[in-house]
Amino acid sequence: MDHRGPDFAALGHRVLKGMQTIFRCSGPVVVYPSSGTGAWEAALVNTLAPGDRAVMVETGHFANLWSTLAQRLGIDAELVETDWRRGVDPDRVEDLLRADNSHRIKALCVVHNETSTGATSRIAEIRQAMDAAAHPGLLLVDTISGLASADFRQDDWGVDVAISGSQKGLMLPPGLSFNAIREKALAVSSTSGCARSYWSWQEMLGPNKTGYFPYTPATNLLYGLVEAIDMLHEEGLENVFARHRRHAEATRSAVAAWGLETQCQEPRDYSPVLTGVRLPDGHDADLFRAAVLEHFDMSLGNGLGKIAGRVFRIGHLGDFNDLMLMGTLSGVEMSLAMGDIPHHGGGVDAAMASLRQSAQAG
Amino acid sequence: MDHRGPDFAALGHRVLKGMQTIFRCSGPVVVYPSSGTGAWEAALVNTLAPGDRAVMVETGHFANLWSTLAQRLGIDAELVETDWRRGVDPDRVEDLLRADNSHRIKALCVVHNETSTGATSRIAEIRQAMDAAAHPGLLLVDTISGLASADFRQDDWGVDVAISGSQKGLMLPPGLSFNAIREKALAVSSTSGCARSYWSWQEMLGPNKTGYFPYTPATNLLYGLVEAIDMLHEEGLENVFARHRRHAEATRSAVAAWGLETQCQEPRDYSPVLTGVRLPDGHDADLFRAAVLEHFDMSLGNGLGKIAGRVFRIGHLGDFNDLMLMGTLSGVEMSLAMGDIPHHGGGVDAAMASLRQSAQAG
Amino acid sequence: MDHRGPDFAALGHRVLKGMQTIFRCSGPVVVYPSSGTGAWEAALVNTLAPGDRAVMVETGHFANLWSTLAQRLGIDAELVETDWRRGVDPDRVEDLLRADNSHRIKALCVVHNETSTGATSRIAEIRQAMDAAAHPGLLLVDTISGLASADFRQDDWGVDVAISGSQKGLMLPPGLSFNAIREKALAVSSTSGCARSYWSWQEMLGPNKTGYFPYTPATNLLYGLVEAIDMLHEEGLENVFARHRRHAEATRSAVAAWGLETQCQEPRDYSPVLTGVRLPDGHDADLFRAAVLEHFDMSLGNGLGKIAGRVFRIGHLGDFNDLMLMGTLSGVEMSLAMGDIPHHGGGVDAAMASLRQSAQAG
Amino acid sequence: MDHRGPDFAALGHRVLKGMQTIFRCSGPVVVYPSSGTGAWEAALVNTLAPGDRAVMVETGHFANLWSTLAQRLGIDAELVETDWRRGVDPDRVEDLLRADNSHRIKALCVVHNETSTGATSRIAEIRQAMDAAAHPGLLLVDTISGLASADFRQDDWGVDVAISGSQKGLMLPPGLSFNAIREKALAVSSTSGCARSYWSWQEMLGPNKTGYFPYTPATNLLYGLVEAIDMLHEEGLENVFARHRRHAEATRSAVAAWGLETQCQEPRDYSPVLTGVRLPDGHDADLFRAAVLEHFDMSLGNGLGKIAGRVFRIGHLGDFNDLMLMGTLSGVEMSLAMGDIPHHGGGVDAAMASLRQSAQAG
Repeated sequence: MDHRGPDFAALGHRVLKGMQTIFRCSGPVVVYPSSGTGAWEAALVNTLAPGDRAVMVETGHFANLWSTLAQRLGIDAELVETDWRRGVDPDRVEDLLRADNSHRIKALCVVHNETSTGATSRIAEIRQAMDAAAHPGLLLVDTISGLASADFRQDDWGVDVAISGSQKGLMLPPGLSFNAIREKALAVSSTSGCARSYWSWQEMLGPNKTGYFPYTPATNLLYGLVEAIDMLHEEGLENVFARHRRHAEATRSAVAAWGLETQCQEPRDYSPVLTGVRLPDGHDADLFRAAVLEHFDMSLGNGLGKIAGRVFRIGHLGDFNDLMLMGTLSGVEMSLAMGDIPHHGGGVDAAMASLRQSAQAG
Repeated sequence: MDHRGPDFAALGHRVLKGMQTIFRCSGPVVVYPSSGTGAWEAALVNTLAPGDRAVMVETGHFANLWSTLAQRLGIDAELVETDWRRGVDPDRVEDLLRADNSHRIKALCVVHNETSTGATSRIAEIRQAMDAAAHPGLLLVDTISGLASADFRQDDWGVDVAISGSQKGLMLPPGLSFNAIREKALAVSSTSGCARSYWSWQEMLGPNKTGYFPYTPATNLLYGLVEAIDMLHEEGLENVFARHRRHAEATRSAVAAWGLETQCQEPRDYSPVLTGVRLPDGHDADLFRAAVLEHFDMSLGNGLGKIAGRVFRIGHLGDFNDLMLMGTLSGVEMSLAMGDIPHHGGGVDAAMASLRQSAQAG
Repeated sequence: MDHRGPDFAALGHRVLKGMQTIFRCSGPVVVYPSSGTGAWEAALVNTLAPGDRAVMVETGHFANLWSTLAQRLGIDAELVETDWRRGVDPDRVEDLLRADNSHRIKALCVVHNETSTGATSRIAEIRQAMDAAAHPGLLLVDTISGLASADFRQDDWGVDVAISGSQKGLMLPPGLSFNAIREKALAVSSTSGCARSYWSWQEMLGPNKTGYFPYTPATNLLYGLVEAIDMLHEEGLENVFARHRRHAEATRSAVAAWGLETQCQEPRDYSPVLTGVRLPDGHDADLFRAAVLEHFDMSLGNGLGKIAGRVFRIGHLGDFNDLMLMGTLSGVEMSLAMGDIPHHGGGVDAAMASLRQSAQAG
Repeated sequence: MDHRGPDFAALGHRVLKGMQTIFRCSGPVVVYPSSGTGAWEAALVNTLAPGDRAVMVETGHFANLWSTLAQRLGIDAELVETDWRRGVDPDRVEDLLRADNSHRIKALCVVHNETSTGATSRIAEIRQAMDAAAHPGLLLVDTISGLASADFRQDDWGVDVAISGSQKGLMLPPGLSFNAIREKALAVSSTSGCARSYWSWQEMLGPNKTGYFPYTPATNLLYGLVEAIDMLHEEGLENVFARHRRHAEATRSAVAAWGLETQCQEPRDYSPVLTGVRLPDGHDADLFRAAVLEHFDMSLGNGLGKIAGRVFRIGHLGDFNDLMLMGTLSGVEMSLAMGDIPHHGGGVDAAMASLRQSAQAG
């Protein structure tokens, strides 16, 4: 399809309006032909000038990467360290912002669902903390691996810029990324930000009004995107979220039965999208993952950054059902046994009991 | 692609030679654009004249259907009844053929893998029984659901005509069927058989010599077929067969742990392709299947013919791996519990133990 | 999709009802997993017994093949010879049937669109001829290459059995074929016909009532078929027919300008689907076709049977537009010049004038 | 496929090495998940600091856009105006660089193939002009619509950074873009450039050494890319270029016969990829394009920027053959006649003569 032709505009409009129903926002959604990393960069360069201070809460590896990216762009990014075993603590955010009397902090950057650990941050409570501190900074939220899998509500939660990508909950190949923008951020962008062109919201929003893009869009992914949006609404977003919660709960039942620890220690922050599992000391998670791949042709997620080799990750993202989860958990349980890793049996049984119970309740 | 053009012949040759490596035969393989039922008809009309006697052993529903088809074509088909809980008994075949002093029986028709029950017949032993009885009849074997999943050796086993289709072990959509033909059958066909044109081996074999077909072939499936043949040899036929045996064994471990009966009662005849499972008296297998479909979006095979409602079938055909099997068995175990069907737990655990053991041995 | 499962029936019903709108018939349409040749055989074995006389009019190669097929099935097929340069002559049919006082002729078999020559037979006039002769024989019409490209009206024209396939006007890969059956043929089939099973209408029509098939259907082609039917109705059958007529007219304008002859000499019988073109004596059409393929990567249809080497065929079947036709005709005109084949220039110009005129009129 | 898994590296290596054979370079090629616009930005931000002067030669709309982009990034971009009817004039480049005694100009930015006009710039001569002026600036060349269609030789021609994308000569959907980098540019980038992260060559080149990427790549397009590279080498790059030159020559023959003007007036700069055609004064090219689309379902390229409404574009990019070109030119010729646009006939005939001649010569 000719991306300058008359038929294209209809597709463009469907994508742009459709993404608002996924972000649950009334402001514009900007679509980039890029990876999610590009959308991280876009959110920063449109709102923060070189030298501006941004606070990132280090919930894990991805928060860390985002902070490094900001520093490369000349932003004064302060990384608030944590133990990588929970989401962002809203009380700590409130203290930190209250202490910033001079309002040097221009933005708080939070990862909604930390893929590296399996912890979700409570965004609504973080917003309340910002409001309680009466702090004017922007709230930038990366929901790359959260959107369309875990509940997300940009408008209700007061997220100034939400960032996401095509390859997780939207079930597409990688190659598209998003900024969903609220009015306050848009206003800031008109007077601040870094020098920018590819990522410039202003350059995008003009052509977007008529359904077009200022440069060649990734047309084939846009076609996939309207299908994905329709599929999500056909199942119902609430049902999608509930399905992921069921699967996460069944997974944790298995982990508990095995006598292993989840990486996330805060029950309120358990991710509905994936579960990070710690192997006992002295056992290498990457060797374990290699054995699972060899014996059962299943690729588990690896530990990233400072928990590399300590953690493996069980994901249940996107188009996933109960029996695929049971296949996954069976592969883990068999591999634990075959690898002589200290554990109890019965994890698969516990997961079946959990799924059965929620299926009968649901 | 133009099926009369020069490029087509290369494809035709690859298909025809490739299928010989799957049937393990040196005689020609004829490819029909038809369902497997067409290949049943083809095998009969090329070798048997109206009024000729054929003996079919009723190992289950499909043997039954084949017999009915033969009768419609005017063949004097005699159906040897069994209890549908085992493959063909070679001793009984020997007795039956010894009793046919006048050699009225022109063909013995056997289903290699009875999909309706999960029983495999021992073809090599049946051939030995025919030889022991010094009977000149042809051996026609339907291996529609057996080929490329269960061991099959046309030449070694002395199968005169082997019949198969595209949609099972060859992992393609339905629409192609096969007759693999040994010399004796070819000789019979030149002087006997029913009036025929579409199914005529003679009409096929002429054009096949140069890689062409006498009428429009199902070209897109032929492309798929050369890929499927390559995939099977890449894995190795012996490895493919071993994989199916492992899965069948693990499945039977689960069934035994549940305290349920397999439909096939003869261990030598257990199918490596699927397992028929009987529900306790008073429980409707079709209601059970409907519940599995509703709760877990899994479609189990139904009981056919006289075991309708008594049996459900667990298949592990084609491109299938350990974790897909565990997903399947988990779905059955959860559904047995949810449906209050009398059974013991532990089937999934038993299957994991079986798979683990064979994985570590293998 | 499980072809015995509940979702399948909806697909089956859509296919069976949809095909009635294409054949323009009220009787049932039977769908075979087979090539069109299978549907030829089906129409014969359901209505004619061995020894029954059928008259085939030899409009070209395909009528010839159909006649041979009938003879192999034991039918007393009489082939009425023609010069292969026109469709069936209704007057000749009337004479022939009037002469058959004893009504030995059970069926008249006619090819609607003779692909080998590019001649269409006037089916409505043939029906009138049969009626004028008050002959009770059945009218069997092969519209394999006509249906969905050239106007066809089974009910209006009184065609007792219409035969077609998936790979021409229905724009699908080969692998499905059809019999559209009117009441009289159905009645005949219940008391006559050859021994049959795969092709048996009776065996098909029972399961078809609930949307199912008596044996494994070619499911992937059935999905394609419902899409193809929808596409045809979206464009409108009349518009599809008009498009083909325009293209055939433009093609003939080019042929006339080149000073070449069309194989079909009867203007009333010009095919809207393809045009057979004769090369001047002493020029080999197959060498010409090979040169076109080599220089322009275009595969023209070859002459078949007794006009092999004399004729090449220009088709404009299925999903084809004006500019594809112009590309085709340009390739022919350039190849005529490059091959030093006696001809005039200006064919492409004439075709453009023809298309322009009809585009502006339309 | 897991883009952190062991199988991915093999794909990554094939892509990165393969692209060197397309750019004909020995330096590294960086692959971005972005549109070509992103690769424009990448080339600039890695080599030029804010305030650095770059000279862009305005060969048409795309050169113009690139200049605007540079200005947005804070680069002092000077746009050398032309009449949009030719490529870059090497002599003018030489004069301009000679006049820059103080070497304030850090980069010369040139569009290899100007899609908006159909003019190609002679890159080798431009390099010679830079060398003659002994100017140390970098040569940045956008070959987004040139690469893999028009001859391009990064090493031989001394192009410091070459920029391209996936959706033109590489025949893929949009979504990948490239920077091919020579040593001098790499050295400059280590001490200069804008603040950058997503576009940073340094961040890319580390992981690329082992076949990986620093952030999620557009995996499905990478699969397509290795196929596209193989296809190009199978045909042979020289043959691909010759094919495009033939098509462009035939197109210009048609335009000349019609009595219309090509937008490009310099024969040495005629693009082999597309031809811009001017309509006579008083005729709106966009109305003409709309009529072509309506009558013949063909989408011609529009005039962009200051030649909007004056020009339409005939492209013959990517997987294109002689008969597709003839279809295209026929559509134009018929539409010129139908739209009463003053022109002569015979364009299609002239193009056929041109193609025939080159086919027979070739």
